[in-house]
Amino acid sequence: MTAPFINPVFDIALSYQKTAALIAALKLDIFTKIGGDNVSLDDLQVRTGASQRGLRILCDYLTVIGLLQKNETSYSLPYASRNFLDKSSPLAMGAFVDFAAAQETIELVFRDPASYVMRGGSEGLALMSPDHPIWVRYARTTMSFAGAKAKRVAKFVESFSEPVYTVLDISAGHGLYGIEVAKAFPDALLTAIDWAPVLEVTKENAQAAGVSDRLRTIAGSAMEQDWGSDYDLILLPNFLHHFSFETCTTLLRKIKASLIPGGRAIGVEFVPNEDRISPPMPASFAFWMLATTPEGDAYTTSDLDKMARDAGFAGATTRPLAPDPDSLIIFET
Amino acid sequence: MTAPFINPVFDIALSYQKTAALIAALKLDIFTKIGGDNVSLDDLQVRTGASQRGLRILCDYLTVIGLLQKNETSYSLPYASRNFLDKSSPLAMGAFVDFAAAQETIELVFRDPASYVMRGGSEGLALMSPDHPIWVRYARTTMSFAGAKAKRVAKFVESFSEPVYTVLDISAGHGLYGIEVAKAFPDALLTAIDWAPVLEVTKENAQAAGVSDRLRTIAGSAMEQDWGSDYDLILLPNFLHHFSFETCTTLLRKIKASLIPGGRAIGVEFVPNEDRISPPMPASFAFWMLATTPEGDAYTTSDLDKMARDAGFAGATTRPLAPDPDSLIIFET
Repeated sequence: MTAPFINPVFDIALSYQKTAALIAALKLDIFTKIGGDNVSLDDLQVRTGASQRGLRILCDYLTVIGLLQKNETSYSLPYASRNFLDKSSPLAMGAFVDFAAAQETIELVFRDPASYVMRGGSEGLALMSPDHPIWVRYARTTMSFAGAKAKRVAKFVESFSEPVYTVLDISAGHGLYGIEVAKAFPDALLTAIDWAPVLEVTKENAQAAGVSDRLRTIAGSAMEQDWGSDYDLILLPNFLHHFSFETCTTLLRKIKASLIPGGRAIGVEFVPNEDRISPPMPASFAFWMLATTPEGDAYTTSDLDKMARDAGFAGATTRPLAPDPDSLIIFET
Repeated sequence: MTAPFINPVFDIALSYQKTAALIAALKLDIFTKIGGDNVSLDDLQVRTGASQRGLRILCDYLTVIGLLQKNETSYSLPYASRNFLDKSSPLAMGAFVDFAAAQETIELVFRDPASYVMRGGSEGLALMSPDHPIWVRYARTTMSFAGAKAKRVAKFVESFSEPVYTVLDISAGHGLYGIEVAKAFPDALLTAIDWAPVLEVTKENAQAAGVSDRLRTIAGSAMEQDWGSDYDLILLPNFLHHFSFETCTTLLRKIKASLIPGGRAIGVEFVPNEDRISPPMPASFAFWMLATTPEGDAYTTSDLDKMARDAGFAGATTRPLAPDPDSLIIFET
């Protein structure tokens, strides 16, 4: 008897192929084409037009990595794939994969991985022009799973003792966070700030939600634009992680100055524990930021509290947004 | 209470970043520079010259994926990294990562993942010219963990009832399989066939092992070259998986014709179980071949037995090479 072969190096050296297989399966729409069925290779060939050999090898590999189930010689979807990869599911996140594993990002991450560790940051996406199509893609592709989170954020805002009349949504993107708050408070006026092409997505979604008559947009950088003052609530979802601690503090100071007394700012971020190595998803997120931004990071609760205090807030607290891996961050004046 | 967040899609969409982090760590030689120590970020900065911020984020991520251990604010190597990633270990396989996650391969795998599934194969590495430097790199980078396997193969050959006098090593590469057999049988003459630049590596290793006076080399393709006949033993390690079932059969027919009666051919391959979805490493290997060769595959024991019989052998049997994930395949005349 020999000991089982336990060597994580093979798996990690080759784990880029898992992402490639997922991209292939999404492009061929394999998850949707399997759906609730138990599908043979012959059938899958008819449904996708791909080679039987390619499908057999791809589907076996997807089974190994847990995205398909194999039943003798046919394939079906396990719960997670049914829920998150079949396009007919409301939680389908294939579009997120298009963003997280976009050709541009993969090239950036692999061009010279040692270089961004050496320098402590990357050029790359953060330096892309405001009208780069990736920002519009980001706004569109994160909508599917931001929807439920945005409702949970709005529910939390409803728990405040005072109603909300003026809301600023920084880096609005799809705009769902501000839109859900506007839906919860029918008198609230919503101001959304983002790059001009992205605001077209925000406007579409506001229109669809019936709140477009209460939406004002400001095109440009949150760092540079004058967005006015006396807001009851300022939202900054998925924004702080792109920047250094110092830049976040500067931004939070500007936010603090434009809130009414007692007003709040609310962020949504991947917040790792203080050990920075758990839970896996938020802790791993820091590496993504290292590889694709000049100074971005995944901030812990104590980081966020410190930057809040440095900026003049009373402090910052975090709450889980489970089952999502993100946290809600509340900056109290 | 909410259910824990179980969604494999995030992990797989982003698993390319695990490979990138491993590449960065190997380039910066972080595993060797930590070695048996428990190293703070300050120390690691001195040892690598990299930014503290980059090192902190990289080392935290390496901890999340199991390649480092974090102890409060310093880092040490878990057993697997000590064994397989610290360059001072005899089993260090960083060089293999240079091959398995070579820039060329990653580009090929990500250029258009749906295309090789559609077509059932890829152009790419298999069509690279014989003098492409990747083949020499492959020969050099697979030596560290081929060494122990080659000794196990030679041990197996020693268990035969008759000694071996003439050995042909097809696609010799580093040549270690043939060299170990030549060491075990001091009268054996060894013929190695591979691309001319690769045979320089074979010759170097034969020299170092003291068997170069018994080595003859034939430069060129195993499919095309006349390699002579009446061999007692023909080795074809890590070769069949590059080709279609039919091409393997053709090659095996040529091999069968150049063995003495009672002679044997021996392969080393990743052999998945008949279900083709286990064990994970050999089963996953088929996707690598799909993405990087026109017709390659990971063959099961029954595939190998069938191609052996089609080629005129009595059959093929497989034996584990544990703790390595590969199997030894014996083709009996």
